[in-house]
Amino acid sequence: MINDKLPKMWYGGDYNPEQWDEEIWKEDDRMFKLAGIDVATINVFSWALNQPEEDTYDFAWLDETIDRLYRNGVYVCLATSTAAHPAWMARKYPDILRVDYEGRKRRFGGRHNSCPNSPTYRKYAKLMASKLAERYKDHPAVLIWHVSNEYGGYCYCDNCAEAFRVWLKQRYGTLDALNKAWNTRFWGHTFYDWEDIVVPNALSEEWGGNRTNFQGISLDYRRFQSDSLLDCYKLERDELKRITPDIPVTTNLMGFYPELDYFKWAKEMDVVSWDNYPSLDTPFSFTAMTHALMRGLKSGQPFMLMEQTPSVQNWQPYNSAKRPGVMRLWSYQAVAHGADTVMFFQLRRSIGACEKYHGAVIEHVGHEHTRVFRECAELGKELQQLGERLLDARSDAKVAIMYDWENRWGIELSSGPTVALKYVSEVHKYYDALHQLHIQTDMISVEEDLSQYDVVIAPVMYMVKPGFAKRVEEFVSRGGTFLTTFFSGIVNENDIVTLGGYPGELRSLMGIWAEEIDALLPGQQNQMIIRGKHGELEGSYDCGILCDVIHAEGAEVVAEYGSDYYKGMPSLTVNRFGQGKAWYVASSPDAKFLQDLMKTICAEHGIQSVLDAPAGVEAARRVKDDKAFTFVLNHTAEAKTVPLGDAVYKDLLTGKEQQKQCEVPARGVMILEKL
Amino acid sequence: MINDKLPKMWYGGDYNPEQWDEEIWKEDDRMFKLAGIDVATINVFSWALNQPEEDTYDFAWLDETIDRLYRNGVYVCLATSTAAHPAWMARKYPDILRVDYEGRKRRFGGRHNSCPNSPTYRKYAKLMASKLAERYKDHPAVLIWHVSNEYGGYCYCDNCAEAFRVWLKQRYGTLDALNKAWNTRFWGHTFYDWEDIVVPNALSEEWGGNRTNFQGISLDYRRFQSDSLLDCYKLERDELKRITPDIPVTTNLMGFYPELDYFKWAKEMDVVSWDNYPSLDTPFSFTAMTHALMRGLKSGQPFMLMEQTPSVQNWQPYNSAKRPGVMRLWSYQAVAHGADTVMFFQLRRSIGACEKYHGAVIEHVGHEHTRVFRECAELGKELQQLGERLLDARSDAKVAIMYDWENRWGIELSSGPTVALKYVSEVHKYYDALHQLHIQTDMISVEEDLSQYDVVIAPVMYMVKPGFAKRVEEFVSRGGTFLTTFFSGIVNENDIVTLGGYPGELRSLMGIWAEEIDALLPGQQNQMIIRGKHGELEGSYDCGILCDVIHAEGAEVVAEYGSDYYKGMPSLTVNRFGQGKAWYVASSPDAKFLQDLMKTICAEHGIQSVLDAPAGVEAARRVKDDKAFTFVLNHTAEAKTVPLGDAVYKDLLTGKEQQKQCEVPARGVMILEKL
Amino acid sequence: MINDKLPKMWYGGDYNPEQWDEEIWKEDDRMFKLAGIDVATINVFSWALNQPEEDTYDFAWLDETIDRLYRNGVYVCLATSTAAHPAWMARKYPDILRVDYEGRKRRFGGRHNSCPNSPTYRKYAKLMASKLAERYKDHPAVLIWHVSNEYGGYCYCDNCAEAFRVWLKQRYGTLDALNKAWNTRFWGHTFYDWEDIVVPNALSEEWGGNRTNFQGISLDYRRFQSDSLLDCYKLERDELKRITPDIPVTTNLMGFYPELDYFKWAKEMDVVSWDNYPSLDTPFSFTAMTHALMRGLKSGQPFMLMEQTPSVQNWQPYNSAKRPGVMRLWSYQAVAHGADTVMFFQLRRSIGACEKYHGAVIEHVGHEHTRVFRECAELGKELQQLGERLLDARSDAKVAIMYDWENRWGIELSSGPTVALKYVSEVHKYYDALHQLHIQTDMISVEEDLSQYDVVIAPVMYMVKPGFAKRVEEFVSRGGTFLTTFFSGIVNENDIVTLGGYPGELRSLMGIWAEEIDALLPGQQNQMIIRGKHGELEGSYDCGILCDVIHAEGAEVVAEYGSDYYKGMPSLTVNRFGQGKAWYVASSPDAKFLQDLMKTICAEHGIQSVLDAPAGVEAARRVKDDKAFTFVLNHTAEAKTVPLGDAVYKDLLTGKEQQKQCEVPARGVMILEKL
Repeated sequence: MINDKLPKMWYGGDYNPEQWDEEIWKEDDRMFKLAGIDVATINVFSWALNQPEEDTYDFAWLDETIDRLYRNGVYVCLATSTAAHPAWMARKYPDILRVDYEGRKRRFGGRHNSCPNSPTYRKYAKLMASKLAERYKDHPAVLIWHVSNEYGGYCYCDNCAEAFRVWLKQRYGTLDALNKAWNTRFWGHTFYDWEDIVVPNALSEEWGGNRTNFQGISLDYRRFQSDSLLDCYKLERDELKRITPDIPVTTNLMGFYPELDYFKWAKEMDVVSWDNYPSLDTPFSFTAMTHALMRGLKSGQPFMLMEQTPSVQNWQPYNSAKRPGVMRLWSYQAVAHGADTVMFFQLRRSIGACEKYHGAVIEHVGHEHTRVFRECAELGKELQQLGERLLDARSDAKVAIMYDWENRWGIELSSGPTVALKYVSEVHKYYDALHQLHIQTDMISVEEDLSQYDVVIAPVMYMVKPGFAKRVEEFVSRGGTFLTTFFSGIVNENDIVTLGGYPGELRSLMGIWAEEIDALLPGQQNQMIIRGKHGELEGSYDCGILCDVIHAEGAEVVAEYGSDYYKGMPSLTVNRFGQGKAWYVASSPDAKFLQDLMKTICAEHGIQSVLDAPAGVEAARRVKDDKAFTFVLNHTAEAKTVPLGDAVYKDLLTGKEQQKQCEVPARGVMILEKL
Repeated sequence: MINDKLPKMWYGGDYNPEQWDEEIWKEDDRMFKLAGIDVATINVFSWALNQPEEDTYDFAWLDETIDRLYRNGVYVCLATSTAAHPAWMARKYPDILRVDYEGRKRRFGGRHNSCPNSPTYRKYAKLMASKLAERYKDHPAVLIWHVSNEYGGYCYCDNCAEAFRVWLKQRYGTLDALNKAWNTRFWGHTFYDWEDIVVPNALSEEWGGNRTNFQGISLDYRRFQSDSLLDCYKLERDELKRITPDIPVTTNLMGFYPELDYFKWAKEMDVVSWDNYPSLDTPFSFTAMTHALMRGLKSGQPFMLMEQTPSVQNWQPYNSAKRPGVMRLWSYQAVAHGADTVMFFQLRRSIGACEKYHGAVIEHVGHEHTRVFRECAELGKELQQLGERLLDARSDAKVAIMYDWENRWGIELSSGPTVALKYVSEVHKYYDALHQLHIQTDMISVEEDLSQYDVVIAPVMYMVKPGFAKRVEEFVSRGGTFLTTFFSGIVNENDIVTLGGYPGELRSLMGIWAEEIDALLPGQQNQMIIRGKHGELEGSYDCGILCDVIHAEGAEVVAEYGSDYYKGMPSLTVNRFGQGKAWYVASSPDAKFLQDLMKTICAEHGIQSVLDAPAGVEAARRVKDDKAFTFVLNHTAEAKTVPLGDAVYKDLLTGKEQQKQCEVPARGVMILEKL
Repeated sequence: MINDKLPKMWYGGDYNPEQWDEEIWKEDDRMFKLAGIDVATINVFSWALNQPEEDTYDFAWLDETIDRLYRNGVYVCLATSTAAHPAWMARKYPDILRVDYEGRKRRFGGRHNSCPNSPTYRKYAKLMASKLAERYKDHPAVLIWHVSNEYGGYCYCDNCAEAFRVWLKQRYGTLDALNKAWNTRFWGHTFYDWEDIVVPNALSEEWGGNRTNFQGISLDYRRFQSDSLLDCYKLERDELKRITPDIPVTTNLMGFYPELDYFKWAKEMDVVSWDNYPSLDTPFSFTAMTHALMRGLKSGQPFMLMEQTPSVQNWQPYNSAKRPGVMRLWSYQAVAHGADTVMFFQLRRSIGACEKYHGAVIEHVGHEHTRVFRECAELGKELQQLGERLLDARSDAKVAIMYDWENRWGIELSSGPTVALKYVSEVHKYYDALHQLHIQTDMISVEEDLSQYDVVIAPVMYMVKPGFAKRVEEFVSRGGTFLTTFFSGIVNENDIVTLGGYPGELRSLMGIWAEEIDALLPGQQNQMIIRGKHGELEGSYDCGILCDVIHAEGAEVVAEYGSDYYKGMPSLTVNRFGQGKAWYVASSPDAKFLQDLMKTICAEHGIQSVLDAPAGVEAARRVKDDKAFTFVLNHTAEAKTVPLGDAVYKDLLTGKEQQKQCEVPARGVMILEKL
C-alpha cells in the first residue's frame, strides 16, 4: 500500500486553491465531499508564492490549505513547488534559464523551465524541499511527496556543457576512450582536450531535434540530461527522505516520454506515478501498453494514476469531450493494469492562462449539476465501496515485451536505413497482437529478471548492451522463448557496430546472419510466406518498412520472402537453443501475422487468454493473495456479450453474480472475482 | 469629399519617378494623360533620398516631381517616406532595428523595419513629417497626406520591453491588478517587480507566432504593439496637422490584417484608405466583406482604394493575370462598397528588386499598346464621366456584422478547444450568406451605435468587454434582433473566464446555458434538425467544428442536434427579450442553413434584397441625397440576366435605360439609378 | 588520360584506414586485391590527425598508409584533409566557425564547416597543402590531388561581410554603380557608404533560404560565396601546383548542387570529378543529364566518377539496396557519359557516426562472401579487361542544352511569377525528351563555343548576360537552330529587367513579343494546338506552369493556345533568322510535345538516334580515334531486344559478336564496337 493512512483507491487530483478566494474554498470543500474526493495534489506551481523574495518564505496559505482539506477529510499529495521558478529568480540569477536546442538563451516564461545544472536552481530547489519537509513532517494529512512536476526538456547552456564534460570524464576516464567510443576519427573529430567538446545541438552536431552527425555524443547527451534532471529529483528526494523517511516520494512521469530513461528514474522513486493523456487517436491497446510500462518500471509494483482529465484536454488540436462513461472506463483501465489511485488534473478549472479549457471535476459554471461532475461523483462512490480490495494486486503475465530508452535513442538518432522505422510503434505492434488475444503481457526493461517469464519479445533490439546477450541465452537455454526482429543486435551501448555480421551478439542465439538491410518505400510491401504450416501460421502475410536479407545458420526457416531479389530467402526463422527457442522476424509484418505468431508461441507454452472477449472488449487481470480480479472493459459504444466459461464470478461493482457469459453495457466495466 | 480640389473619383496610384531618369518622366506625363490619371502617390520610400546623411535634407527631386505632375494635371497623395529607414541610420543608430519574434536583432533590410519604440525612429520620422509639411503646405498639388505605408510587424527589443512596462503601469496601475488580470498564480508566474516582466515571444511565453502560455500578457502585447505603431503614426500626423490643418491625413491599411486594431487607428485618420490584394482563391464575397469592414472603420464614411494591381501580383505563389475586365469589375466592386478613389500599385513597373513582377499601368515594354493599359485608360475615361455623382454616397444597410480585433486575438491565442476555429472565417460565413441573398450588410465594431440597425450578428463573440452585454440587451429590448454563436461570452477583456456558466454575460439575453463545448474531428459532423418549420428553416442541416452542449433557460428551441451524446439537445435557440429576439447558433452550420436563417431573420424585419440577382452576380447600393445607386457586378465569365422588378433605371456607365431586366455582360458592371 | 601511371579505368574509392587498426589493414590489402581495386582516396578527413596541435604535424600514419597501399598495387588519390577543421582549432580560433543563414555563430561540429574567409582557415589549409605536396611530391603512388571535399555551404560572418564589400568594390567600382545595379532606390535602400552593406540572410534581406527583397544583393552574395570557396580551393591548388606541377588536381563536385557556379570552378581544375548519389526516385535520364553536365564543365573532357555507393546510402529517407546488377549498370552509365574512373564511397564501412549505414565494398561482416562484394569484384575484373580502350573517348553530340548557375539563381530568387517554375526541372524536360529518343546531347555553359553544334536549346533563359544574344544570333544566322522558352530574355546579369518588351535582347532573334506572363494554378492547364501539321507535331498537347501571352513579330506561328483569354494566340513559334531558325516555346508543354518537337528539329538537321532502343534502355556513344563505342544500358528488370540495323558489332564486355539485334539482360550492359 502506498500509504496505509488511506487504505483505499485514492481519489482526487491537482488542486490550486491559491488561484481562488475564500468563498470558493468553501464550495470546494462541499463539492469534494459530494464527489467522494479524498486526496488533493497541492503546491505544484507555488514557488513564487512560497518564496516571494530571495530571503522570504511564506507558507501561511499552505498551512491553511492543508488544515482545511484535512478538516474536510481530504489528504494531500504534497508537491514541492519547484516545477517553475519565480520570475524574480530568473532576473536575478539568469543561470537558472535554459539555453534551447537552437542555442538561444531563454527568458522567463513557461514551466519546467530551469536548467538542471544551474547552481541557483539546485540550491533553492533543495532548500525548498527541506523547508517543506520540516514544516509538514508531522502533519497527518500528508500521504506522499510529489517532487516537482513532469520533469522534462533539455538545456544546452555553458553550465550544462561544463557538467557534461565532468559526466564524460566519469564515464570514459580518458579522451582516448571517448574518441574510440564516439569513433571521432570519422570526419576528423578527434578531441585532444576535454574543453574542445561542445554540446550537441543545432549549432554543432545536430539538427531537427534528433538528427545528428555523431550518434555517440548525441546518445551520451541524452543520458547526461536525463541524469541531470534525475540529479535534481534526487537532491529534493534526499532532503525529504532525510527529514521524513517514512513518507513515500514520487514524481509524475509521462508514459513513453522520449527524453528521460524512466527505468533509471524509477529506481529512485518509492512509487511510480504518471499522467495519462491519450490523444484522440490513441488506440486503447496503446494506453494499456503504457500502463504496463509504468507498472514495469518497478518490476510490477502498482503505480499511481496521478493525472487524467475528467472531460476534455486543452492542448490537443481537437479537444473533444470524453463521451459519457469514458472517464470511468479509462479510470478502471488504469486500475486493471496496476493503478492503485485514480486522480485528475484538475479539481477546479482555472479561469485564466493556457489550461483554462482543460477539463476539471468542478467546471467554470461552479456547481455540481453537470454531466462531468455527476460521473465523477458516481465513480467516487464506487471507489469508496471497493475499499482496499484491489490494492497491491499484481499482474500474473508470463509474456513480457522489452522496451529500452537507450535503444530508442539509438534508433531515432540513426542516419538510415529508414525514417519509417518508429521503435515505439514496432513495440506496440507486438503488444497489440497480444492485447487483442487478451493475453496478459508485461512491459519490462532489458535488465529485468527473465526467469518469471515464458516468453520474452524484444522488437528491434538494435542496441545490445554488455551482458544482455548472455542473459538472454541463459533464459532461452532454460526453456524460454525469445523473439527479436530485423535491425537488432547491430550496435553496442555507444552505437558502435558489432563487427562480424548482424545481428552481432545475438547471432549465435538466433542462428542466422543478416547480410543486408533493405528499406522499402512508402506503400511498398513484401510478403512472408509460410513454408507449409507452422502452428497458427499459414499462407502469405504482408510485411514492410525494412527487410533483413538473412541466411539461416542453424535456424529453421519458417517463412520466406515472397518477392524482390531476396524472394525465397528466410523472412521468419526459429532457432532451437538449449531447451528453448529463438525467433527472428526479419521484417515488420501485418497485424494478422503477429496475432498468428503470438498464438503459436503462447500455445507452445500453454499461455491462455484472460477471457475470450470479443473485439473492442479488453480483458485484464490482477492477482492478490490467490484471488484473481478479472477486469472486463467494453471500449465500444454498444453492449457486448463476453463468454465466461464454466466459472462463476461476482462483479465487484454491482455485487451481481455472472455465469456462462456476462453482458457488458456500452463503455461498461466489470471486475469479476471468481466464486 | 476627401478634398474638393479634385471633385471626382480619384484615379491613379503609387509612382516612383526617383527610380527613373528624365526621359522616362516625359513618357509618364504623356501616358498618365492617355490613361486619365489624376492622382499620384509619391515619396513612399524615399527617406534615404530625402535625408542622405544625418544632417542633410534634399527635396529637390520632390519639388521637381510635384511641380511636373501638377503641370500635367496630376495631383499628389504625398507620403512621408518613413516606411523604410535609410541604411546609414541603421548602422549609426542600431536602436532603429527591430528584434524579431525569435529574439534576434535584425540588420538593415526590407521595409516597415523600424522599431516603433526606437528614439531614433521617432525623432527622425517626426522631423521628416514636419519638414515635408512646411515645404509643401502651400503647394496646390497636394490632396492628402499619406503617412508611412502599410504599418505592421511587431518588435521585441529592450526599448519595447521598457515601453511595454510603462504601458502596463498605465493600464493596470499596480502589479496586484496585473497579476490578477493575467491570472499569474497559474504556474507560479506572480510578478513582484515590474522589471520581472519580459516580452512574450519565442524565448519566453510564446511559440509558433500565436501559441502562448499566458493569454493575458500576449493579448496585451498585441494591444501594446498596435498602440506603439499608432503612436508613430500620430507623431507624424500631429506634425502634419499642426502645419497643414486643412489637408486630410491617412495611412493605408490592409483589410483584415491581424496585427493592428484598425478600429482604434481609424479614429486618428481623416479618411480610411486600404490596399486590396485578393488572393487567387479569395471569394468575391470576402473582398466585399473587407470593403465593408474598411467602410465600417469610420462608421460608414467612404474610403480610399489606395492600392490594387492592374494586372498581376508578384508575391503570391501563383500570380495569374487578372482576366480581361476583371480589373474594372473589382474597381467598381470597391466603389460599390464605399470607395471614392480607384488607385493602383503601381503606375510604372520597376526594373529591379522584388516587385518587378508586380503589375503596373505602364508595363516594362513601356508603351500604351498593351491590354492592361487599354483597360486602365478605358476605366479612366469612365471615372471622368462619372464625375462627383457617387462621392460621399453611403450604405443603407439595416443588417450589421460585428468584428473585433481583440476578440480575434483572444480566439487565436486560445489553447483549445480546437485549431479548426478561425474567427475571420466564421464571420465570413455569415457575411457570405447575406451577400448571396444580396442583402446590404455593414461590418461594425463592438462599440458602434446599434440603433441604426434592425439586425446585429456577432459570430463567436468570445470576448465580452465591459458594457457590451448591456448595450446589446438595450438594442434587443427595443426590438432589434441579435445573433451570436457557440464559444461566445466566455471571457472578459483580459481573457479571464466569466464564471457561472457560459455564455457568461450574454446568458440572460440568450436564455440558454452552455454546459460543455465539444470539438469535432476533421471530417466529423453533427446535424441541426429543425423542430417542425421555422420561417425558411426546415429539415436537417450539417454543422461542425465546435458543438456547444446547451440547455434552454427560457429560449425557444428551434433546432436540436441530430447525433452523438447530445442528440436531441438544442442546437439553435431564439429568446424573446423585450421587444426583440436573441438567437444562439450552437455550432458552425453549413451555408444552406445560414442562408435560410438569414432569410428568416430578414423577413421578420422586412429587410429586402438589393436586387434578385442570380448566382455570381453581386448587387450593392450606395445612397446620397435620396438617390440610390445600385451596382450590378457580374463576377462570372458569362453574360447574366438580372430581373429589375417594376422600376425603370438608367445605367450611369452607358447612359442607357434599363427596365424589367438587364443583361450584364461577362465581368460587366452597371450602376443603376432609378428614374 | 588523367595520369598515365595507371592507364585504365581507375577503380577504387574512399578509404579511411585511420579508423581501423593494423589487423584490419591486412584484410583490406587482401580484399582490395580480390576486388581489383587499384585506387584509394585517402586523407579526406584527417586534419585533426595530421595536425593534432597548432605547431605539430604528424604524417607517420599517412606515410605508412601510402607505402602499404602502393606495395599492394593500389595508387592514391591524395586528399588534402581540409574538409573539416580540428576541434582544437575551432576553440582556439573561432573565426574559423561559420555564421549561419539565421545569423547564428556555429560551434564545432559537422564537416565542410569552415568559413571561407576565415584567416585561420586560409592560413592553415594552405599550409597543409604545401606540407603534403612537399612530403609526397616524389611518391610514385600519388595519381592525383583531391583538394578538400564536396565544397559547399555559405557563411554570413563579419569576415565574410568585410570580404563581400571588397568583392563588391572590385565588381562595381563605385557605390553609384552598385546602387544602380541593385536598383536600391526601390524601398529607399540607397547606400552612401560601403560599410552600410550587410550580408543578405534571414536577419536582413532574405528569408526561407532563397526568398529575397533584393535580387541584386542576393545574386551577388551567391557569386561571392561561390568565389570565396573557390579562392580556398585555389589557395591549396596553387601550393600543390607550385610544388608538383605535373600531378593533376581536382576536387569532387556534386552535379546540380545549387550553391556553386561549377563552370567557373572547372576552369581551375585539371579534371572534373563528382559524386553520383541518385535519389530513389531519380529518373535515369536525370542521372545521364548530370553526367553530361559534369562532362560539359570542361567542354567535353572526360571526368572522374569520384564517389557512388556500391549498395545503400544512409542519408535518404528510405535507403533501399541497389538491386543486383544496378551498381554495375550505373557504373557503366557514368562511363557511357564520359567517366574515366569508377570509384566508391567507401571501401570499408565505418563502425560509428552518421555514415555507418552507408554501403561499402567491405561490409561490417568483414569478409568477401557478400553479394555486394561479389558484384564489386566482378566489375573490377571487367574494368581490368577493358584496359585503356575507352579512356579519353568523347561525346559526338550535335545537340546541346544550356544550363547556367547564375540564371538558376536569378529564377530561384525571383518573387513571382510562380513557385511552380523549377529551372532544373525545365531543363530536364528537354534533356529527357532527347534521351528517350536516344539522341546524343551535351550540357553546356552559356559561354560554350556553339559552332560544334547544330541545335542549341536554352530552356528558361531568364538572364541574358552581355554578349550572349549576339553569339546566339551568329550561331543561328550560320544555320543553327536555337530554342528558348517562356520567361526568357527578361533580365541582365544583375537581374535588372531589359526594357522595351520581353524577351528583351532575344526579341529580334525570336521574332516575337511577350506581352504578358500568366501563371497557372496547380492542376490548371492550357493547350498547344498545332496549326495543321509541322514535322512530327500535330494535334493538341497540354501545357502549364506559365503561359507567355505572345505576339508574332515575323515568326511563324506553329501552335496556338487552346483556351483562356489568349486562346488562339501563339504558343509555339519559329523564326527564320539568317540560315537558321529560332524556336520559342511559350509555355511548359507535356512530354509528348517535347519528343515530337525534338524529333522535328533533329530531323531537319539529320541528327539520328544512337540506336533505336526500346523504352527503359539507354543508348549512348563515346568516340575515340574514329572508333565509336556504343553503350547499351538496360535499366529495366526484364531482358530487352535492341535492333542494331545492318552493322555488325562486338560487345567489349563479352567479346561476342552482335548483329541485327542484341539481347540485353535485365539491368545488363553492352559496349558495342562496330566491326
